[in-house]
Amino acid sequence: MPNHKLARGVALVGAGMSKFGAFKGKTSRDLFVEAYVEMLESVDLGINPKEIEALYVGNYSCDLFEGQGHIAPIMASWTGLNPLPAVRVEDACASAGLALREGILAIASGMYDVVVVSGVEKMTDLPTEKVTDTLATAADVQYEIPAGFTFPGFYAAMATAYMHAYGATPETFMRVGIKNHQNGSMNEKAQFGATISSMMEGRKASAAKKGLPIPEWKDEMDFLHDDRANPIIAWPMRLYDCSPISDGAAVVLLVSEDLASKYSRNPIYITGTGQASDGALHDRQILTSIPSARLAANQAYQMAGITPADIDFAEVHDCFTIAEIIATEDLGFFEPGKGWIAAEQGDTSRIGPKPINLSGGLKSKGHPVGASGVGQVVEVWKQLRGQAGERQVPGKLRYGLTHNVGGTGQTCLVHIFERRD
Amino acid sequence: MPNHKLARGVALVGAGMSKFGAFKGKTSRDLFVEAYVEMLESVDLGINPKEIEALYVGNYSCDLFEGQGHIAPIMASWTGLNPLPAVRVEDACASAGLALREGILAIASGMYDVVVVSGVEKMTDLPTEKVTDTLATAADVQYEIPAGFTFPGFYAAMATAYMHAYGATPETFMRVGIKNHQNGSMNEKAQFGATISSMMEGRKASAAKKGLPIPEWKDEMDFLHDDRANPIIAWPMRLYDCSPISDGAAVVLLVSEDLASKYSRNPIYITGTGQASDGALHDRQILTSIPSARLAANQAYQMAGITPADIDFAEVHDCFTIAEIIATEDLGFFEPGKGWIAAEQGDTSRIGPKPINLSGGLKSKGHPVGASGVGQVVEVWKQLRGQAGERQVPGKLRYGLTHNVGGTGQTCLVHIFERRD
Repeated sequence: MPNHKLARGVALVGAGMSKFGAFKGKTSRDLFVEAYVEMLESVDLGINPKEIEALYVGNYSCDLFEGQGHIAPIMASWTGLNPLPAVRVEDACASAGLALREGILAIASGMYDVVVVSGVEKMTDLPTEKVTDTLATAADVQYEIPAGFTFPGFYAAMATAYMHAYGATPETFMRVGIKNHQNGSMNEKAQFGATISSMMEGRKASAAKKGLPIPEWKDEMDFLHDDRANPIIAWPMRLYDCSPISDGAAVVLLVSEDLASKYSRNPIYITGTGQASDGALHDRQILTSIPSARLAANQAYQMAGITPADIDFAEVHDCFTIAEIIATEDLGFFEPGKGWIAAEQGDTSRIGPKPINLSGGLKSKGHPVGASGVGQVVEVWKQLRGQAGERQVPGKLRYGLTHNVGGTGQTCLVHIFERRD
Repeated sequence: MPNHKLARGVALVGAGMSKFGAFKGKTSRDLFVEAYVEMLESVDLGINPKEIEALYVGNYSCDLFEGQGHIAPIMASWTGLNPLPAVRVEDACASAGLALREGILAIASGMYDVVVVSGVEKMTDLPTEKVTDTLATAADVQYEIPAGFTFPGFYAAMATAYMHAYGATPETFMRVGIKNHQNGSMNEKAQFGATISSMMEGRKASAAKKGLPIPEWKDEMDFLHDDRANPIIAWPMRLYDCSPISDGAAVVLLVSEDLASKYSRNPIYITGTGQASDGALHDRQILTSIPSARLAANQAYQMAGITPADIDFAEVHDCFTIAEIIATEDLGFFEPGKGWIAAEQGDTSRIGPKPINLSGGLKSKGHPVGASGVGQVVEVWKQLRGQAGERQVPGKLRYGLTHNVGGTGQTCLVHIFERRD
């Protein structure tokens, strides 16, 4: 696997995102401009847009979601970045992580010094069943789809394999959802800005208001076991185990390392990048781990010269709750088969030893698929700079990590970020 | 506009392509493997696939054409390149030119030494009207499509503007088609392996065989003026002014300059790359030129340290015949308004001073949209190495150029190739 030294280092000096959610009246262009403007405003020492030299756009399927192809120059147009080179990259739900890597390589190549990296997706124009069909095109359509699988099914297969191998239960997965909604309740950009507990209380209040019988849920776990409140999508994955259908955009600004102090009082250095691919799920030897994630993580750690123990916190690809548990093992935070125990013990909570998905993750923050990988970077930027407000992890942070998966791991990208002061 | 120096040089050491055409029983995977195997076999000193470090795939819309997203890891799977990083890039019909540029930057970055760059498209599974709709998503769907335009209309508007400004006639465009079919008749990989004259004779013979009246076409121009033989698509663009709907794949192998002699007895160096973007057609000041092409060309010439006069031959993006004439002006081969005169005088023919589209171009070779940009590179590779057979330009060649356009110029990429021995 390739893991050479980059010709020069790259720093992150700005980050912004739209709110993630379902926005009926907005197009991907509108959301993109919101994120871009917030990115510009986030640059400590200011950026003149004329200094920008290229635009990378991660997007999964504007083609199928909005009937629009060739979106990179359109986003360049709407942000005033024409006639700069505008590049769309796509590796399904890892499209934005891929945009980040391509932006890093482009700066390292010497071609550019200042690059905008972004991700955008507008999913809610389609009815839900069409969204599921569109997402299913990220699998191997020729072989996997005729077998009756869509993504909840794939991850349910991984979840049952994991339960069988290691003893986790559906309750394990529920606890991941509870944690991520807890984190997301403190994120004003999150699609669900509420804990599961408060959503449960809201349902009770709504029933009371309508004069209907008030459901007798004792606590969150009781609520999550109610088939009507939390229906089974593909057992053991229930509704609250699945990330939502979302619209959103996220934009970051990368510069060559030597320019970092020109733009930022507190730049974040991207010291590790890893990427790997894989075949379809049925070709794998194992369902309880994503091999491309292990490979990508190892590349990133090796490049950064650190180990999993050095990572202070991570944003991982929790498209389903099982995916977060597997991710924490693939990234080397916990031994194989121990990630579910760590999750149950609270080790991955905001105040635990290895906080995971402080933003709320895809589960609560939302999952506009082609934007999610850069959305993760926005959280790392905020946490490392101590700007995450109510959800800020206490204490000094040095290393953050992002883990972005396409399909069931046909693609995985891992990046490592460092604060150096 | 950015135009920095790359951290290291890049060489082309292998190239292959599938036949372009309409292949009912084949998928994009089949065509990709054909092209990949031919590329491997083209490497003078051989390549062990284990030495390859990444795969870049240009593809416009596998999503809409085949209902398949996330195709980069699938192509990696079918060529045995998993678990290498597999990247899909998209800028409409310039997707493969974009893949080339991203591959160049990736090697220059220091991340990889050996990269496969490719393009693929499988268009003929859809009925023709659906293909036109799919291609139209490369325009600005929100503004341009409701105005009633699809691509033949856009280029017809450019053609009429050009005729009005400079005095060209529909016959000018016909002559471009005749030339490109002449070139393509000598290319065994071309979709139309025949001159327009021989297609005309074929029609006569077919009529005779069926006992129908034999059409009385005097010559090719007479044939091309026949509304039944060559119907108007969007005046002045007739059927034989439009590139066809095609399936195909093209694959090349890039290595860092210092490794060129390890793989090739006669490597080709990529000494210039340029890319620019633009807004929709209605936002432009001018319809007789593509501004992004002028910008991209200037970047590439500057990087290569040469001028348009140095270019021995070029493969340009003749999606419509008018596009070739405009390209030869945008690339600086002829003054604005003089390209049509050069075309009429035969200056761009195989034996003229500036041969254009020796492969037959998109017009005759075929236009599998996301593959075309790398298809152009395959021709440059063959011509510069003296391996183009019957259509080989006589004499020693040093510089070749490729010009790949997305949409009506929302994207343009230009690359310059050099033989050094």
